[in-house]
Amino acid sequence: MWAMIATWRMALEGVSEAGKLLQEGKSSGEAIEHAIRCVEDFPYYKSVGYGGLPNEEMVVELDAGYMDGSTMAMGAVAGIKDFANPISIAKDLSKDTVNCVLVAEGAEKYASKKGFERKTMLTDRAKIHYRKRIKLLKEEELKPYDGHDTVGEVALDSQGKIVAGTSTSGLFMKKAGRIGDSPIVGGGFYADSEVGGATATGLGEDLMKGCISYEIVRKMKEGLSPQEACQKTVNELDAKLKKSRGFAGDLSVVAIDKDGNFGCATNIKNFSFVVYRQGEEPIVYLANPVGNQTEIYPASQEWMDNYMKERIVPIEE
Amino acid sequence: MWAMIATWRMALEGVSEAGKLLQEGKSSGEAIEHAIRCVEDFPYYKSVGYGGLPNEEMVVELDAGYMDGSTMAMGAVAGIKDFANPISIAKDLSKDTVNCVLVAEGAEKYASKKGFERKTMLTDRAKIHYRKRIKLLKEEELKPYDGHDTVGEVALDSQGKIVAGTSTSGLFMKKAGRIGDSPIVGGGFYADSEVGGATATGLGEDLMKGCISYEIVRKMKEGLSPQEACQKTVNELDAKLKKSRGFAGDLSVVAIDKDGNFGCATNIKNFSFVVYRQGEEPIVYLANPVGNQTEIYPASQEWMDNYMKERIVPIEE
Repeated sequence: MWAMIATWRMALEGVSEAGKLLQEGKSSGEAIEHAIRCVEDFPYYKSVGYGGLPNEEMVVELDAGYMDGSTMAMGAVAGIKDFANPISIAKDLSKDTVNCVLVAEGAEKYASKKGFERKTMLTDRAKIHYRKRIKLLKEEELKPYDGHDTVGEVALDSQGKIVAGTSTSGLFMKKAGRIGDSPIVGGGFYADSEVGGATATGLGEDLMKGCISYEIVRKMKEGLSPQEACQKTVNELDAKLKKSRGFAGDLSVVAIDKDGNFGCATNIKNFSFVVYRQGEEPIVYLANPVGNQTEIYPASQEWMDNYMKERIVPIEE
Repeated sequence: MWAMIATWRMALEGVSEAGKLLQEGKSSGEAIEHAIRCVEDFPYYKSVGYGGLPNEEMVVELDAGYMDGSTMAMGAVAGIKDFANPISIAKDLSKDTVNCVLVAEGAEKYASKKGFERKTMLTDRAKIHYRKRIKLLKEEELKPYDGHDTVGEVALDSQGKIVAGTSTSGLFMKKAGRIGDSPIVGGGFYADSEVGGATATGLGEDLMKGCISYEIVRKMKEGLSPQEACQKTVNELDAKLKKSRGFAGDLSVVAIDKDGNFGCATNIKNFSFVVYRQGEEPIVYLANPVGNQTEIYPASQEWMDNYMKERIVPIEE
């Protein structure tokens, strides 16, 4: 049995290719790296890799994390600039047992020495988005932060190894050097081959306070299904944040267990995710909070058609 | 009832002063900041703040984290250079709900704009340590990484607020940009005023994989005493790491609950920590693993006398 789950519709193409790798007997580590690289390389996704929206200084700073659930090996980069595939650097860092999480210039030095591909990650399209936002911010009293669509993925291979990975350009208009949950083990991602894996997207500052991916895997270890674990964890963190300071940021999570069962929970509308399991086709689901539960159903053809149209629509200054 | 707990003997002077602040009715946030600044400012502690040992490029890079257990407010800096008091910057960052974790140059820009004190953090003594280590590394086949004595502290004030904080220069000879568990909420520190708080020191890469401070607080929430929660969490993570890849790094933790009870667990010899509680004197304890338990006893006068002598002994090239 192999299976993959990933946050957001944008993961579909990569997951579809990675599923074929898993079908051929490739490892979950290879599948995760391949699937996330596809998202990083696609210029029309505004929150991951090439084409990702910049920080308040119009610089694209990228975060990525990787965990092998069999060895507990873990690697991450945060605030790295101008490398094409942060996920591959994070995976490489997981091979050692120290110096596994590198930030900013230190991460860039490492990546450069190791020969990872340099790339100017700020696109003309992202520059237009930036300038439009600056203009809007001058006109309106807007909270500037937006766009937190981290790609987070978990894969189970036919040898039973579970791997989790993430990649993001973080919040649009974030402060220079800001990092969210994506490069943080237990926050943005977690994997335990004896149990399952989970990954998160939303407001990183809130997700990390709940160690949300760790907590989902921990609950699955206690016997909860992936769906129960996702839902209970989101509900608890959402309630705790509201009780502590009056509101909760966006929290969306997906998980699979070692048998390929999956779960998803969210406190936002129309959170999309992708599931691809042995013997099935890849499916895009939409999730919506209904009371204390999450309603999950396959995306309609219309939704799917509109999705890519909206992504690639020309924009003007 | 107020109480404080902190990792390592080096916390003693700061905790002693901070306890007086708590006695005067000051908040746990003020106590944590004051106590940790004392450690950061003392030039003879090699693993925190001024005098901290540098990375492999002979640059001192500092990490700090702060969490308010009543509001879940959290802030952290990582890989920041040449600011005197990282804990104060982390505390300041916790006032916002986004951009709370800043790394490297971004963190420095923020600190500079906010007027935090600049300071050259590399001391002549640290340079001698660095050059001696380089010489040793050429002569012997040594694993270069050493020195992971993060100061981590938890305070409960008489209003019932629990705050946790950390500060460290990280592993001696770490790679540029490397960060450990200290700036990571749930890894190096966690606080929940309804339950308790915990903080960790040791090999950051391993501590963060267990979300160790979060897990201790979570276990206390389930009803375990601070001692039971610390011990069980260290035992579980130590066993999981050994099972997954054959060995576990150094793991030491301390915790207090909302009633001022404390706990400590470690998998290394002679881990020291400091406890100061209302109506008592500050006490330095030593902890040693014995089977699956941790033996804890007050440090002898001899041990205390030797401690400071060893710290300030002149060193030569």
